[in-house]
Amino acid sequence: MNDAPRHILVIGMGAGDPDHLTLAAVKAMRRADVFFVLGKGKEKDALTRLRRDILDEHLTGPYRVVEAEDPWRDRTQQDAGRYASAVRDWRHRRADLCERLIAEELAPGQCGAFLVWGDPSLYDSTLAILDDIRGRGTVKFGHEVIPGISSVSALAARHRVTLNQVGRPVHITPGRRLAQGFPDDCDLVVMLDGHESFTHLTGRGWWIHWGAYIGTPDEILVSGPLDDVAGRISGLRAEARERHGWIMDTYLLSPTSGGDGD
Amino acid sequence: MNDAPRHILVIGMGAGDPDHLTLAAVKAMRRADVFFVLGKGKEKDALTRLRRDILDEHLTGPYRVVEAEDPWRDRTQQDAGRYASAVRDWRHRRADLCERLIAEELAPGQCGAFLVWGDPSLYDSTLAILDDIRGRGTVKFGHEVIPGISSVSALAARHRVTLNQVGRPVHITPGRRLAQGFPDDCDLVVMLDGHESFTHLTGRGWWIHWGAYIGTPDEILVSGPLDDVAGRISGLRAEARERHGWIMDTYLLSPTSGGDGD
Ligand SMILES: C[S@@+](CC[C@H](N)C(=O)[O-])C[C@H]1O[C@@H](n2cnc3c(N)ncnc32)[C@H](O)[C@@H]1O
Ligand SMILES: C[S@@+](CC[C@H](N)C(=O)[O-])C[C@H]1O[C@@H](n2cnc3c(N)ncnc32)[C@H](O)[C@@H]1O
Repeated sequence: MNDAPRHILVIGMGAGDPDHLTLAAVKAMRRADVFFVLGKGKEKDALTRLRRDILDEHLTGPYRVVEAEDPWRDRTQQDAGRYASAVRDWRHRRADLCERLIAEELAPGQCGAFLVWGDPSLYDSTLAILDDIRGRGTVKFGHEVIPGISSVSALAARHRVTLNQVGRPVHITPGRRLAQGFPDDCDLVVMLDGHESFTHLTGRGWWIHWGAYIGTPDEILVSGPLDDVAGRISGLRAEARERHGWIMDTYLLSPTSGGDGD
Repeated sequence: MNDAPRHILVIGMGAGDPDHLTLAAVKAMRRADVFFVLGKGKEKDALTRLRRDILDEHLTGPYRVVEAEDPWRDRTQQDAGRYASAVRDWRHRRADLCERLIAEELAPGQCGAFLVWGDPSLYDSTLAILDDIRGRGTVKFGHEVIPGISSVSALAARHRVTLNQVGRPVHITPGRRLAQGFPDDCDLVVMLDGHESFTHLTGRGWWIHWGAYIGTPDEILVSGPLDDVAGRISGLRAEARERHGWIMDTYLLSPTSGGDGD
């Protein structure tokens, strides 16, 4: 029996713009024998297409992609504790799936790659899943991580702003956590917000820099005083979501006017 | 008189690893007629060398670099208000300098590039300076921003961890702000910390992922329970700082054990 170690590359692909790929990501892609892509539904279709385009552009020979349907996830839990345990549960089922992929689709000594949206370090479960699988001890592998341009960096670049004001913190938060409060005196970056939390934050003189499908041909950007543009963003969001069947958007809220941009 | 607009590219270069350059950054570098590099002292020498190596690797023809000495900065102000105004003051002097560079070193119609360390959206003053110069109305230019891999993404990738725990916020903060408190229930990323603030945060069961000179040949990484490794990090820091004459380090503090890595 061959027990040469398997190797896994976790590659950050950027959040939409194919040119946000790093040179390290291109080099890593060229080392991979198999690419694993997890996802589901319309969103999956769009993101998978983008990944395929990227592979076609940068790989010269034929390559092998293994696509797997993402396990079902309970999205009904809003309470913080239940939310975390629903996510853990889902990650566990994803780990079962990935364990099988690694064991069955990757021969000992081969190199497999997970193509991760944006940066693997932000709101992505791939690394937790690999740690989980390693903990089980059923299949041996090494892994390394190639960072990617996150949707947060892409948002700031498109709006030509910094995330922080001089000397101040930046607080990156899932939309659902805003209802529980947030620290003063820092800029807020909101991700994973299906509920337009920004509409509850008007009346404070804040500034918003918002972007959807950033870096893709469908990109939409809006910025301005939150009180003035919140309604317009809601309208654009609803319309785009209707048209595409899904939406991904991120925004920066600056507690001060954001006038000097720093 | 030629009044063709000047164009400025603000290019994120990654925080040390030359392969963290994006394809967009390479394309942008190839559009530039002149490269502007600001800096000072030993740190400047090292970072300027790295930028030169990157240019040499990706540009085929000759290129023009204009280096300028960074204006003096008052680093004695620790009080929050005074700190911000000292930074603003310094940015103003930098803006004077950059205005002169753009007006004198860049012909109308030409394209100039600022090579920014890491990601231009995190604790970097280039964008604020350009807004300031535009506000003066003395020299006309357009500008665009190419995001880069920040030291934060690079830190997480090297340690193969995510910044956030499931469903929780990430708080990115300058070290000097920690003394004023920080939000509970989120992970902390600390930058710009000349004072080893982590040494004041022991006794809480926290976990640290620390890195210095990340992505460069001098990279040092340490992780573990903060109480166990704080002393070792202080020692390594002092030694490295002594050896190089300067240090850049970043760390992630996870209020929970960080055991499952997600
Ligand atoms: C599961 S998280 C993954 C984040 C990813 N790892 C990153 O670095 O951007 C998905 C969230 O990222 C944000 N996002 C990802 N891609 C985006 C894009 N192209 N435009 C706007 N937001 C995006 C949205 O807030 C979305 O809800
Ligand atoms: C003025 S800020 C610039 C940050 C930069 N724009 C970025 O995206 O990383 C400088 C701080 O970034 C962090 N830093 C930058 N490069 C680093 C590296 N290679 N290794 C560790 N920390 C780094 C340190 O915390 C340092 O004090």
